[in-house]
Amino acid sequence: MSDIVNIALGGGGKQFQKFLKDIILNYLGNDILNRLGDASYINLSGEISYSTDSFIIDPEFFRGGDIGKLAVYGTCNDLVVSGAKPEYLSLSFIVSEGYRYDKLERIVQSIKEASIDVGVKIVAGDTKVIPRLEREQILINTSGLGKVIKKLNDYNNIRVGDMVIFTSDIARHGISILLEREGVEHNIESDCGNLWNIFSKLDYKYIKFARDATRGGVAAVLNEISNMSGLGFEIDEKLINIDERVKYFCEFFGYDPLQIANEGLAVIVVDSSGVDSIMGILKSLNMGKNASVVGTVIEDKKVMLNTYIGGRRYVEMPYGEILPRIC
Amino acid sequence: MSDIVNIALGGGGKQFQKFLKDIILNYLGNDILNRLGDASYINLSGEISYSTDSFIIDPEFFRGGDIGKLAVYGTCNDLVVSGAKPEYLSLSFIVSEGYRYDKLERIVQSIKEASIDVGVKIVAGDTKVIPRLEREQILINTSGLGKVIKKLNDYNNIRVGDMVIFTSDIARHGISILLEREGVEHNIESDCGNLWNIFSKLDYKYIKFARDATRGGVAAVLNEISNMSGLGFEIDEKLINIDERVKYFCEFFGYDPLQIANEGLAVIVVDSSGVDSIMGILKSLNMGKNASVVGTVIEDKKVMLNTYIGGRRYVEMPYGEILPRIC
Repeated sequence: MSDIVNIALGGGGKQFQKFLKDIILNYLGNDILNRLGDASYINLSGEISYSTDSFIIDPEFFRGGDIGKLAVYGTCNDLVVSGAKPEYLSLSFIVSEGYRYDKLERIVQSIKEASIDVGVKIVAGDTKVIPRLEREQILINTSGLGKVIKKLNDYNNIRVGDMVIFTSDIARHGISILLEREGVEHNIESDCGNLWNIFSKLDYKYIKFARDATRGGVAAVLNEISNMSGLGFEIDEKLINIDERVKYFCEFFGYDPLQIANEGLAVIVVDSSGVDSIMGILKSLNMGKNASVVGTVIEDKKVMLNTYIGGRRYVEMPYGEILPRIC
Repeated sequence: MSDIVNIALGGGGKQFQKFLKDIILNYLGNDILNRLGDASYINLSGEISYSTDSFIIDPEFFRGGDIGKLAVYGTCNDLVVSGAKPEYLSLSFIVSEGYRYDKLERIVQSIKEASIDVGVKIVAGDTKVIPRLEREQILINTSGLGKVIKKLNDYNNIRVGDMVIFTSDIARHGISILLEREGVEHNIESDCGNLWNIFSKLDYKYIKFARDATRGGVAAVLNEISNMSGLGFEIDEKLINIDERVKYFCEFFGYDPLQIANEGLAVIVVDSSGVDSIMGILKSLNMGKNASVVGTVIEDKKVMLNTYIGGRRYVEMPYGEILPRIC
């Protein structure tokens, strides 16, 4: 096989067959995928959670992950915070002509590891090649199916007095990517991670609502919940964990860390009676060791922040270009 | 809203919320999609067919369709030929900065019409913006779920003596797109169409296997079936329907019409006892009026073509770049 992807790979002919065997099935093969139809047969029953997401990121390889890991965890995390156990994934590559096969192979290897970590099976796929872009680039779409344990996406479950937990410190993904793009030497790892590692340990009876805080950060999630539920939040800046280095770079570049993307952080609304139990478990887990209770649900349909210096401000829904750009 | 897509649309903030309301939900809204979670809850049970496909085409609007119609029918057709009734779709846009909203709206309108035609519900979605490409461009990924009626993707069902049907005349999609790209005036419509319109009328008890013949044309499908089943085909060129104008342009440009993409044609392997019944129904349908029985399954693991002029040649799996380029 040539060292770089050429347009023939997208044609469905012999070159594609070889790619399928040597890379895709070699790493990702399983009893369902190996059957190689244009559609796959799976068995499911009852209430299912279904999600899709496309992943574009520059750089594609970064501290703490790469686009492959991101594409698996990203869609699985959406299923997890909806209250489901991820079961099946589809995987669709759009690769630019000239993309190096060794990079593609590293990404597929990474997809394998992430899917084993979650315990999800990749059962459907597709590969297309687009003419050479400004730079070598890969875009990945995943869609996923999970079995619902308890619906955690129902805004109607939220009540005044419920407590809000961030499952880790904020803004690590966005700042790590920003520094890579700016060519700044740093050792900040993206939080790109598998939320099923956390949620599989929690007692869902205490959880009212959950959402992962990716694009737009925790600010976008809190505002969306507020808009949809008709309720609001009062959160306390002092209670939000943030890595000192991340805080430094946010100040340096002038970004609000509440608006910065995370890739392994969930915002959880819990019944106040369950806070200690949930926090006890989170603190015992590596991914949850920086979890904190950051505030409460209030009647006023706003997101109110009590600041470090004793002031109060509204946290707005991010508008316009979300900075830093990560694609 | 500005006339063109800018990077802010991908940020998940206010601009995205407006796009979601004014375009996506306005055209595609339904009880599930309107709930607006990052994952959607659906009810399914039993054997499910699952498929994904990414769509890139230049031009995006062509005679007989556009990329929106293609993205719905393409994935639904994969479900249909697997033996399932399409039920749910996910829809993911990757749009380049500067893409015109009025074009995006036309595409969404087209997606609406196609999904109503199939009877499928769009229940999950995602939109990303990528920096300006060489040209304004939209890429669409759809994944889909269908309820299996009878598995039509099982190579083991195929027997020597079974008959092969092409459900319409060949090569219209690829040649129509080629002529658009070359700026040749023409009136050849892509066959971009909904195979559920055909399959919903057929008696599945006679159908052993089905596959839609897209990239690589009927040549790729027949070779793939041959490789996987260990059997072969003997087909007769005189029995294959092809529009005279399509044939002319294939000869003019030097393309083998067997390798040209279709977007509304299925290759069906049927038990010989059911050929008359299946053909009778196909001929009564608009999409099937050019259907024909083109040959039989043979023991020899090859695809043999009896040519117009009385010769015989092997039909090879397309290799390298599939021509004409359609993206």
